[in-house]
Amino acid sequence: MDDDAARAWAAVEALAARPRASAIRPLFAADPKRFERFAHRAGDLLVDLSKTSVSDEALAALLGLARACGVEARRDAMARGEPINATERRAVLHIALRAPRSAGFRVGEEDASATVHDTLGLMRAFTEAVHAGEIRGATGERFTDVLNIGIGGSDLGPAMVARALWREGVSPMRAHYLANVDAHAWEALRPRLDPARTLVLVASKTFTTQETMLNARLVRAWLAEALGEAQVGRHLAAMSTNLEATRAFGIDPTRVFGFRDWVGGRFSLWSAVGLSLALALGWGEFARLLAGAWTMDEHFLSAPLERNLPVLMALVEAWHVNALGYPARAVLPYDERLARLPAHLQQLEMESLGKRVTLAGTLVTHATGPVVFGEPGTNAQHSFMQLVHQGTTPVPVDFVLVARPDHTHVENHRALLANGLAQAEALLRGKSAEEARAEMAASGMPEAEIARLLPHRVFPGDRPSTTILLPRLDAATLGQLVALYEHKVFVLGALWGVNAFDQWGVELGKQLAGPIGKELAEGKVRAGAHDGSTAGLLEAIRQAQEPPPAA
Amino acid sequence: MDDDAARAWAAVEALAARPRASAIRPLFAADPKRFERFAHRAGDLLVDLSKTSVSDEALAALLGLARACGVEARRDAMARGEPINATERRAVLHIALRAPRSAGFRVGEEDASATVHDTLGLMRAFTEAVHAGEIRGATGERFTDVLNIGIGGSDLGPAMVARALWREGVSPMRAHYLANVDAHAWEALRPRLDPARTLVLVASKTFTTQETMLNARLVRAWLAEALGEAQVGRHLAAMSTNLEATRAFGIDPTRVFGFRDWVGGRFSLWSAVGLSLALALGWGEFARLLAGAWTMDEHFLSAPLERNLPVLMALVEAWHVNALGYPARAVLPYDERLARLPAHLQQLEMESLGKRVTLAGTLVTHATGPVVFGEPGTNAQHSFMQLVHQGTTPVPVDFVLVARPDHTHVENHRALLANGLAQAEALLRGKSAEEARAEMAASGMPEAEIARLLPHRVFPGDRPSTTILLPRLDAATLGQLVALYEHKVFVLGALWGVNAFDQWGVELGKQLAGPIGKELAEGKVRAGAHDGSTAGLLEAIRQAQEPPPAA
Repeated sequence: MDDDAARAWAAVEALAARPRASAIRPLFAADPKRFERFAHRAGDLLVDLSKTSVSDEALAALLGLARACGVEARRDAMARGEPINATERRAVLHIALRAPRSAGFRVGEEDASATVHDTLGLMRAFTEAVHAGEIRGATGERFTDVLNIGIGGSDLGPAMVARALWREGVSPMRAHYLANVDAHAWEALRPRLDPARTLVLVASKTFTTQETMLNARLVRAWLAEALGEAQVGRHLAAMSTNLEATRAFGIDPTRVFGFRDWVGGRFSLWSAVGLSLALALGWGEFARLLAGAWTMDEHFLSAPLERNLPVLMALVEAWHVNALGYPARAVLPYDERLARLPAHLQQLEMESLGKRVTLAGTLVTHATGPVVFGEPGTNAQHSFMQLVHQGTTPVPVDFVLVARPDHTHVENHRALLANGLAQAEALLRGKSAEEARAEMAASGMPEAEIARLLPHRVFPGDRPSTTILLPRLDAATLGQLVALYEHKVFVLGALWGVNAFDQWGVELGKQLAGPIGKELAEGKVRAGAHDGSTAGLLEAIRQAQEPPPAA
Repeated sequence: MDDDAARAWAAVEALAARPRASAIRPLFAADPKRFERFAHRAGDLLVDLSKTSVSDEALAALLGLARACGVEARRDAMARGEPINATERRAVLHIALRAPRSAGFRVGEEDASATVHDTLGLMRAFTEAVHAGEIRGATGERFTDVLNIGIGGSDLGPAMVARALWREGVSPMRAHYLANVDAHAWEALRPRLDPARTLVLVASKTFTTQETMLNARLVRAWLAEALGEAQVGRHLAAMSTNLEATRAFGIDPTRVFGFRDWVGGRFSLWSAVGLSLALALGWGEFARLLAGAWTMDEHFLSAPLERNLPVLMALVEAWHVNALGYPARAVLPYDERLARLPAHLQQLEMESLGKRVTLAGTLVTHATGPVVFGEPGTNAQHSFMQLVHQGTTPVPVDFVLVARPDHTHVENHRALLANGLAQAEALLRGKSAEEARAEMAASGMPEAEIARLLPHRVFPGDRPSTTILLPRLDAATLGQLVALYEHKVFVLGALWGVNAFDQWGVELGKQLAGPIGKELAEGKVRAGAHDGSTAGLLEAIRQAQEPPPAA
């Protein structure tokens, strides 16, 4: 960390060390205009950061931190296609995936925008040919279902978007997602699919991802059994750059859609990896999703720091994680269609920011990525929100509210929104002992009972939340929302000085799985190869897998 | 906290304050028998606690803590039906739900076991009559689908079990779960259901839960429209104690299944609330689920502390949360069928233990319930596990492995198990700079490149995990697994001195939602009723809900 950054961090920490630095109510009491000043719009989104303990002074210090950490310069370096994924010496240009061709993004000699739009053209032609019935299955039937086989970024983003935007009776095809190497996942999907009408996409850049290839082989065998080996290729396409392997698998090169190494897995739903979305939702919807993201990109690339939403959200998170020591954040979408948004953000944020080494190769001196978790509201209120209201450590919450529903059940939607707003209000406001006592007394409760229950019915309040309001949930607003979080991650990476675009932490487990798989196959444990626990568990599994003794 | 408990906590904390108290590898190095001594069996489950930094000394201190906190005495008070849910003056007797009638559990004057078995008899008769086609829908068709309407404990537990145990071609009915007041949830379910063949269960003890009643009315209207108002009752049943309200809703009293106030929502899947499971899976499966839980109950009620699995798991968690300050825990079921286990445990643990006031009414002096989150393995490896391996704060992991699958895809299952074991091994073992350097050198990497990448490829190791091994996933082992976590929660409540069976923290949000709903309905914000943020968001929603101006 350079001296400027160190001084900026110290300034933030000094503010956090003041008495009542985590109090929020006094900030509202002191400033009737706090909401107007801490709620910002970009595109169709409203993001309200006022229900946090970031004071004007704290915000100034945090903006100073953003400047000291060179957020704008790093952002601009990203847009110029510089290799800001330094460990892997790669550019980071998912923004090019959703920009118009005329944006002219470049990576060195490469016209990245042209590459992107060439691929989009191929994806569009393929999608429209499938929808028009020009591309059909082996039996001549139209494709009604698309099965996407991929894991991590090749699964979570597309699956999340498909769940959010798919509409019965409107969307052209059904989408299914197969990720887990656990074949119970495939066995649960299989009865719902007719091989004659199913188009299978295999998403793996290298075409070697263990889970994806094992599943692809299961599904390929299912196709071959139903349709004949010679027909399998008509039901397959791939998102990959390994043309040799896809050809060996029986996939025609015209059905292999590529993406460059400047598209990270967790940022790839906008690339060829999103092909299942184009097929399931229609090309227009996919294009609107991209355009929505680009709306947020333009905001991020151009808005001054003090009105830049991803920057402000990142600064609030740094305040929570570093200044106040809050180790987790909950994401509560008050829309059932966004049920998998928390899982997508879990990958996006925790894989990007769960790092302990800076770009310079030194150990970080601050906490980095918090734990991110969530479930849809109102369900979460009947589950873990008890802890958020009355647990010992505050858990900042992101509430995602959608003003207008796509159904006509007015009373349900009103209850949904009222509950979302009320949770945020309750976290902020709390309930004092005086209030709790007065309520119980008004209900006629005897004094001894009041005294007994009082401490349990007090809510501390001053618990932070951010509310993101979407006018409706559609491709454009969802694109904006996801891009907002992507750029927030970028900014946090800059503040913490870590590379948000690599993931070395997934390597060791993969490495160790190989030999263990071999031992499981051979039914014996290599002496001395493992710690006592791993060896003991391997032996216990071996025993449990033995056929039961004849009775 | 009494003096004994305070001394016991101090002893634990003193051990945690020693240098390298969080190191695990030295414990294996010092003791080749560590696995044998820290892995325990109960019922069909093996639980391995050896991959934690709990040393023999720490375990002794933690067992001393359990004794000082009177864990055994509290457990026995629970079993005697004493009102250990002290704030609500209720007994806590979910164990009676799965015990044989002869167990003779009592709550004061009530023969709780008799109550339970009377209800089970009614549930069984109803279930078998539906399966036999003696109870049919309005058009004379058999019921093929059961729709459970409920939220929180009336949803998460049954939905989790149904997903885990439902088998295509074997299970007698399909189960669907409707929880969220967001009507997009109902709109997504509706096209998959035929009213003539759908049996609807409404689960709400008081029959006033806002979400459940709004959804019940939507579904009732759908039935009435398809089948006629007079026929609706034939498609309805309830799990409730409010016979007046269920009758007003059109549900015959013989189709209302009750449960007592000594069954908390998050412990209720074993009660009448589990009726959807009996219907979907068959009575035999439901009975085996209960019997599985009772196997674990018997273990918990009788095993000495030092071999008592729920006790040991709770002590390990106290070590992580309180002694080492780890604020979250991940649950990774390596079985796609257990995809909703993390969500169920989130409620079970965070709603029970997210408390800041002791039973005595004083503020706790230790951290209580950690954040619990998770996704199935191997999916999680391609998502948030980066942070668990290389983030700044260790996140203890529960790995749940299943030795034998219910499919024939041997290679997939082997990869699944190998990956689960390898993740735990990687967390423990880490990768030193020497190892990382040697690997890169062996691959022929130039020295400058090695130096640049080295810090990023180091894994600190000594990160804790617990592995739970099931021989297979079936009703019996799932019952054992869920009961294990229930009792762990009980023990942590005793250690922390909090009431694990109330949930006052959900009240305030409910209270505030009422007036906000009214304001949304009226389209105006009451002046001065809210903080500036809530008022500002209400106004923004009002504007977003206005019809767009005519062009």
